[in-house]
Amino acid sequence: MITTEKQIRFQHCDPAGIVFYPQYFYLLSEAMEDFMAATGKPQHESINVKRRGWPIVKLEADFVGMSRYGDIVWIDVGIRRIGGASLVFDYRIRGDDGDRMRAVGTVVHVDLGTDRPVPIPSDVRAAFEPHVMAGIG
Amino acid sequence: MITTEKQIRFQHCDPAGIVFYPQYFYLLSEAMEDFMAATGKPQHESINVKRRGWPIVKLEADFVGMSRYGDIVWIDVGIRRIGGASLVFDYRIRGDDGDRMRAVGTVVHVDLGTDRPVPIPSDVRAAFEPHVMAGIG
Amino acid sequence: MITTEKQIRFQHCDPAGIVFYPQYFYLLSEAMEDFMAATGKPQHESINVKRRGWPIVKLEADFVGMSRYGDIVWIDVGIRRIGGASLVFDYRIRGDDGDRMRAVGTVVHVDLGTDRPVPIPSDVRAAFEPHVMAGIG
Amino acid sequence: MITTEKQIRFQHCDPAGIVFYPQYFYLLSEAMEDFMAATGKPQHESINVKRRGWPIVKLEADFVGMSRYGDIVWIDVGIRRIGGASLVFDYRIRGDDGDRMRAVGTVVHVDLGTDRPVPIPSDVRAAFEPHVMAGIG
Repeated sequence: MITTEKQIRFQHCDPAGIVFYPQYFYLLSEAMEDFMAATGKPQHESINVKRRGWPIVKLEADFVGMSRYGDIVWIDVGIRRIGGASLVFDYRIRGDDGDRMRAVGTVVHVDLGTDRPVPIPSDVRAAFEPHVMAGIG
Repeated sequence: MITTEKQIRFQHCDPAGIVFYPQYFYLLSEAMEDFMAATGKPQHESINVKRRGWPIVKLEADFVGMSRYGDIVWIDVGIRRIGGASLVFDYRIRGDDGDRMRAVGTVVHVDLGTDRPVPIPSDVRAAFEPHVMAGIG
Repeated sequence: MITTEKQIRFQHCDPAGIVFYPQYFYLLSEAMEDFMAATGKPQHESINVKRRGWPIVKLEADFVGMSRYGDIVWIDVGIRRIGGASLVFDYRIRGDDGDRMRAVGTVVHVDLGTDRPVPIPSDVRAAFEPHVMAGIG
Repeated sequence: MITTEKQIRFQHCDPAGIVFYPQYFYLLSEAMEDFMAATGKPQHESINVKRRGWPIVKLEADFVGMSRYGDIVWIDVGIRRIGGASLVFDYRIRGDDGDRMRAVGTVVHVDLGTDRPVPIPSDVRAAFEPHVMAGIG
């Protein structure tokens, strides 16, 4: 599991003064990038150089607490399962008073030229495997 | 069920040339606003005047097709269930070649002063009830 | 000059209940797309098929009124000048009580493979020329 | 002058693989928040507690280089002028190969209840004054 700290920015908040929910997915996207970079396999190298990306195919999210402008939050990222060409990410966003959001997202490794799934390379699999876990929290 | 037509804009698309998934939720948010406006209960009046909003508590989404810059899509919005203070929305985004995304989102009617759930007013319930349906598609 | 009508959406608004200024540029981007489509030269065809885009090089904006959630606004788009490979767009966003924003943006026609400027094709020039004007408003 | 380091994220980039220009303003917004926090006057305290905000009234930007997914950039923030109720910020975004963007933005200190300008408090003025400079770069 890899944890990154983020701050709730003005741009994340809505007229009710709390995070507008699509903005949570930008935070999760950043956390996934942080996760991949921490394993030595940054997504920007995969996309820019190898032309392989990770589009999402399934997402489940529970919004269990409110985040407000200025809050510090921590995002835990783990992997629930590694398939042949897919990954199931497990996410938790925590504030200082408990959980704010839980999510599970399935992404598929695709060739950006053909848009077809391609097997996860063995070096990427090896880098991610230490983070496979039964669940977060 | 209420359907609105949208176009995939430059701002929705990522370096792979397809919709970046959090942007789909902006489209769903617009479609929910269009739905409420079509029933005579626009969300901006509820939020600006009555100070009642609809934050999300649960979301499930399946991304079943890719949308590209310039595509015309149609978003179907229905209601799966109306609770005492909650609504379960059913969404489908369709392109000219079939479905692109399916989602179910649960929102709760809250007082923006206290952040506590409040019962859905009878006039709002009456406006939404004709759109309760077993499921979309 | 070409005018499109837009509505201020929840996603455009900040914790102060007004449009957060970067969101105005998404509205201008949509209005520029609407302008190009109205002239018969939609940007998505240029980018997707011809691999020619219009990145911005200079922007000036004055924010002269506040827009709130739910407001209907009109965006006027004209062209101030057509150069060999550049266009100067003139924008005005109006509400029912007067101007909200004025902007001038210079974009350059580039080849997306080389990132180098390329001359504006004569058919595009001919489509845009009727909209060259001394200024909006 | 206060400098913060940022990374160009997937969410900032467009189908041409470069930063879509409104996204630069989110980066500037974050950098302004970082600036205010570094001076001991975080914007979230001003907005959440004192109900005083800083809407923008004028913006000029020059986009002088392209930023790509994964790039590390540095954002310099200084103040060009402090008025009675206004601030003129000076921004520069730099990559490892030189400048990417220059901008000047004027913001006004307003009461969020009345939307009227209010004088900048003396403690805020004192915190910001050490960062007044003739210009960046």
